[in-house]
Amino acid sequence: MSTDFPHVTAPDATARREAVARHERLTKPQGSLGRLEELGVWVAACQGQCPPKPFARPRVVVFAGDHGVAAHGVSAFPSEVTGQMVANFLTGGAAVNVLASVAGATVRVVDLSVDTDGAGLPEQVTAHKVRRSSGSVDREDALSDAEVRAAITAGRAIADEEVDSGADLLVAGDMGIGNTTPASVLIAALTGAEPVAVVGRGTGIDDRGWMRKAVAVRDGLRRARRVSGDPVALLRAASGADIAAMAAFLAQAAVRRTPVVLDGLISAAAALVAEELAPGASAWWVAGHRSVEPAHTLALEQLDLTPLLELDLRLGEGSGALAALPLVSMATRVLAEMATFEDAGVSGRDTPLPTDAG
Amino acid sequence: MSTDFPHVTAPDATARREAVARHERLTKPQGSLGRLEELGVWVAACQGQCPPKPFARPRVVVFAGDHGVAAHGVSAFPSEVTGQMVANFLTGGAAVNVLASVAGATVRVVDLSVDTDGAGLPEQVTAHKVRRSSGSVDREDALSDAEVRAAITAGRAIADEEVDSGADLLVAGDMGIGNTTPASVLIAALTGAEPVAVVGRGTGIDDRGWMRKAVAVRDGLRRARRVSGDPVALLRAASGADIAAMAAFLAQAAVRRTPVVLDGLISAAAALVAEELAPGASAWWVAGHRSVEPAHTLALEQLDLTPLLELDLRLGEGSGALAALPLVSMATRVLAEMATFEDAGVSGRDTPLPTDAG
Repeated sequence: MSTDFPHVTAPDATARREAVARHERLTKPQGSLGRLEELGVWVAACQGQCPPKPFARPRVVVFAGDHGVAAHGVSAFPSEVTGQMVANFLTGGAAVNVLASVAGATVRVVDLSVDTDGAGLPEQVTAHKVRRSSGSVDREDALSDAEVRAAITAGRAIADEEVDSGADLLVAGDMGIGNTTPASVLIAALTGAEPVAVVGRGTGIDDRGWMRKAVAVRDGLRRARRVSGDPVALLRAASGADIAAMAAFLAQAAVRRTPVVLDGLISAAAALVAEELAPGASAWWVAGHRSVEPAHTLALEQLDLTPLLELDLRLGEGSGALAALPLVSMATRVLAEMATFEDAGVSGRDTPLPTDAG
Repeated sequence: MSTDFPHVTAPDATARREAVARHERLTKPQGSLGRLEELGVWVAACQGQCPPKPFARPRVVVFAGDHGVAAHGVSAFPSEVTGQMVANFLTGGAAVNVLASVAGATVRVVDLSVDTDGAGLPEQVTAHKVRRSSGSVDREDALSDAEVRAAITAGRAIADEEVDSGADLLVAGDMGIGNTTPASVLIAALTGAEPVAVVGRGTGIDDRGWMRKAVAVRDGLRRARRVSGDPVALLRAASGADIAAMAAFLAQAAVRRTPVVLDGLISAAAALVAEELAPGASAWWVAGHRSVEPAHTLALEQLDLTPLLELDLRLGEGSGALAALPLVSMATRVLAEMATFEDAGVSGRDTPLPTDAG
């Protein structure tokens, strides 16, 4: 299957203009809802209609996979946690489940490369599994040529499945012990940053762990930089089946004109690659939050996205995107449901100034 | 009626400790939910139980009142808008209605001092009305001695009514053309700031309007500083029946051990006075957002509150608190509903480090 994506079209300029104009007629001072107004305008443009419709089926897809580099002391947790957390997602006990419930979203978990045989997991979870774990990016390719193509095909197929099932807003979440190491390599490769500028504490490593991770990122980056001009080759060298699938998912969501709320470090790394796979895709994304991972800020700057929240989150799973999702719902419903000055019989601002001013 | 408030007790230290400990057992890296974890701990302490219960009846009370100073060119909108917006709140067409609906809160409007006779409004709206408009604080007291006592009594009664009706989380919203002028005076009086440091653009005044507002704040502050050590005298001189009632409402909410999400400039001004009326009340408050009004930041610093959101809002009505309310719900439900490592059979972080690290 081809790794070429169809052309990404831009969100609708007419609906965008209508939304800007509608905001001026709603019963509030112009611009007084700040970023919520911009966000509503973006939703209207993505939907191609003003007022926009409240989202009927916001959907989180958690991309799960293990990473060979986790065996080299770059994470505070052992690899077995990835598979255990997949089970936890399926029984509703994880943060993503709770936040999705509050935000009105549903959760799907896909196992691309968890280091288990997937026995006992539902078909919907394992249907797109590419391999067990991915290569240790500090010393070997994450994926073979066939595997990177399979992962990209999987990500595209998952986006198509979700959009075809009615998802009208998507979030890409992540689960994978060790996944901040390849994500940091990808971001360094695509932003030109030095290893020390991208290495964070992940789930909470100590100083010695940080040093091991910095060495792994340095070695991975040496390998990644050779292929940084080719997004498929870059994914093969320095991602993992989970991250490669997520990149393809984000690209295909844009192809399918479906808005996405980005989460933290992993989704930002995937998004940087997705913008290379499908130029223009980033117009379909909003940044849910800024995490404490330093590479996340570098990626957001390169994507020219300003995060909605800054709450010192560093969990992944889609949690930061879900924390921001109610703001997207509010922004949408403000445009859809607020009264206009005319409807409500409220006076506008253009009344004569008093003569006794002072 | 007395303007002395009962002693404010602190949120529960035992529940706080239990919540901190519970966060360490939930299936996520320690501290990885950042401010959502702190917020959940605060909710547990306010409720005096861990895990905390999801909020059953979050309630927004919008305090409406006109201000004599609006006749002197300090606002972009005419005073008649206050009464028109009260009607808009009651028919559900305002921003506060839409945001409350998304956040799962209900809205009550109270007319303390709108410059209308209140004809046709429900009893629940007008029962606590103190007067039509309030004095122009640049040149006269906002309220008489009897009126400031009536407004404080009203605010306390409204808080009691809401808590007695089952409200378990409160937001104080505002509506009143011209109300940023007295609020800015109050904040300057209680923080020691100069007039130019507190004067913002309110609903969107131009440069000439800003200069008129700066003069009004300067003159109001000259009057307010004489009485800034006495919160009741300060409210009489430089607030309005709406703001005085809001201050008493915030103080009484703390007396009643009910958590509050603060909104923007007006609620911050009322909160500064409430902390003087009932010392310790601020432990029961969280700051929903930081608005673009410069005085809001000064007030938040003095209250030692870090806002959850920073979205360039400047609407009032409780909108910024409501935008943050889903985060409070998420923080609460994370503690209540997430699985522990033990429950979910997920391994913790304390596994031996590999020997081939690097």
